[in-house]
Amino acid sequence: MGETYDSTTFEETLREKQSEIEALLRMALPKEEDFQKTVLEAMNYSILVGGKRLRPMLMQETYRIFSQKESDRALIQFMLALEMIHTYSLVHDDLPAMDNDMLRRGQPTTHAKYGEAMAILAGDGLLNLAYETACGAFEMMPYRGDSGFFVERHQRIAKALAVLSRKAGVYGMIGGQVVDVECEKKGDEVTPEQLDFIYRLKTGALLEAAMVIGAQLGGATEAEVTLVESVATKIGLAFQIQDDILDVEGDEQVLGKPIGSDEKNQKSTYVAHYGMDAAKAKVEELTESALGQLYRLPRHNMFLEDLLKSLVHRQK
Amino acid sequence: MGETYDSTTFEETLREKQSEIEALLRMALPKEEDFQKTVLEAMNYSILVGGKRLRPMLMQETYRIFSQKESDRALIQFMLALEMIHTYSLVHDDLPAMDNDMLRRGQPTTHAKYGEAMAILAGDGLLNLAYETACGAFEMMPYRGDSGFFVERHQRIAKALAVLSRKAGVYGMIGGQVVDVECEKKGDEVTPEQLDFIYRLKTGALLEAAMVIGAQLGGATEAEVTLVESVATKIGLAFQIQDDILDVEGDEQVLGKPIGSDEKNQKSTYVAHYGMDAAKAKVEELTESALGQLYRLPRHNMFLEDLLKSLVHRQK
Repeated sequence: MGETYDSTTFEETLREKQSEIEALLRMALPKEEDFQKTVLEAMNYSILVGGKRLRPMLMQETYRIFSQKESDRALIQFMLALEMIHTYSLVHDDLPAMDNDMLRRGQPTTHAKYGEAMAILAGDGLLNLAYETACGAFEMMPYRGDSGFFVERHQRIAKALAVLSRKAGVYGMIGGQVVDVECEKKGDEVTPEQLDFIYRLKTGALLEAAMVIGAQLGGATEAEVTLVESVATKIGLAFQIQDDILDVEGDEQVLGKPIGSDEKNQKSTYVAHYGMDAAKAKVEELTESALGQLYRLPRHNMFLEDLLKSLVHRQK
Repeated sequence: MGETYDSTTFEETLREKQSEIEALLRMALPKEEDFQKTVLEAMNYSILVGGKRLRPMLMQETYRIFSQKESDRALIQFMLALEMIHTYSLVHDDLPAMDNDMLRRGQPTTHAKYGEAMAILAGDGLLNLAYETACGAFEMMPYRGDSGFFVERHQRIAKALAVLSRKAGVYGMIGGQVVDVECEKKGDEVTPEQLDFIYRLKTGALLEAAMVIGAQLGGATEAEVTLVESVATKIGLAFQIQDDILDVEGDEQVLGKPIGSDEKNQKSTYVAHYGMDAAKAKVEELTESALGQLYRLPRHNMFLEDLLKSLVHRQK
């Protein structure tokens, strides 16, 4: 895929790609100036405090399956937008009225550092900036008299915007958050259908957005986009179930947090519903099926395969 | 402008237009079903609980200055999107960490009725839905082989999206909210520049978005769009100053709320800074200047003129 890659260097390549994405983010973030300085600081803090940059990375790696190019300027706008949406959702999730978390990745959460009002506004600001940034993709593709090229590129970007807003909204991530909030501390009362809904949307929806938009902007056919979406859905679900597994039998040293919190909080999980063996088997089944679908795409991206495997087999 | 209108029927026409916009909103709002039902209810409640529908109305009336048509499907998507953005901003503004209001228009605010977590998510959901709705404008203009038409329409919609996200974000409405929050209870310490910043952005930015997008989608030239934006800026500022005036010498019976709250809350206002006479003169000066600019546009829209006048000369 352009750069040299063999899987023995996975961790190193991963870090390089994270740094590249962070450099893009730093360039795109608002300058902390003018009267509204505080909210701009709070937004930049929330984004730069850390993160695996998984979603923009998945988008770019999926794009590379379909495109001859490594990336393009419209793609970069969407990569940045998706990371902003992910970040806003964490800022609002951490609020006192939601999860009430004071620390994230060992650092003060946005409301802990800037106060609750500013955290609400910083989240709102990031969500808006995400759309402003994604809309910037159109400006990267101005009309230069070649209407065929213009029509094709504009249609791709418009479709990508539609996917982004759908997957981030009440039929995507927010939908999952809502049901998660409502099912809190309800343990056994939560139905398998509700659990599936939360798992599919709360984390899965943005992973789907990442891979689908990467495919769309890379020029995938509709059938290929459907295949890519199915890969993302399965990986998202496997990722969530692995989360449940680690909360029961993870290594506290490796995880960097105590295990058993789901049981303590009477959280309904896949493990609690179906048992540990079934949960592990499900992770394997979903992963194999997703990787099998990935092989049916026109080109292989070995790094992407390793990245997906690392997500579902992670120990922390 | 298509329908019959003379200014003696202003109030009646206003109510008719409000009902038309509400009918469009009702059709566009999400069905209250599936697992995330509660947030959909909270979103619909927030929008349908009331409102003058001023922003979509301004957008449509400005469009009618430039277009031969009364409206088009792309315009309607943006009208709905703007009202959703306005509504989300009220839902988040009313939160305990912000203004902590339990009533709005005599009805329970969203967090009073659905709880704080659901109000945060409903606001987020409305903001996302606004962009999803605005992006829907592209689908209303599919490519049918006429690339000239496609290029022109797509460019207009892309520009309208850029304006919407800019004016709603940290360089628009949210920027104004942030400085407003920070200047609270600071009275005399607030500088005229800060006050101007708040007034220009907190209410003004969305009024600008309304009129600019209406002009763009109606096919205005760039010079005409600039003129329209200037009209909106002036009316927005006059509207805010009138607010300050009414809080000092309004009729409590007509207003439906006690006057004097700005002084009590040590709020920095235009009246406090410059005195009542200067404030009143400023409202007149801004209104005359705005209406003068409006006359330079290709067609007159008498209802729009009356609407703008009613905003700055309102008694409640």
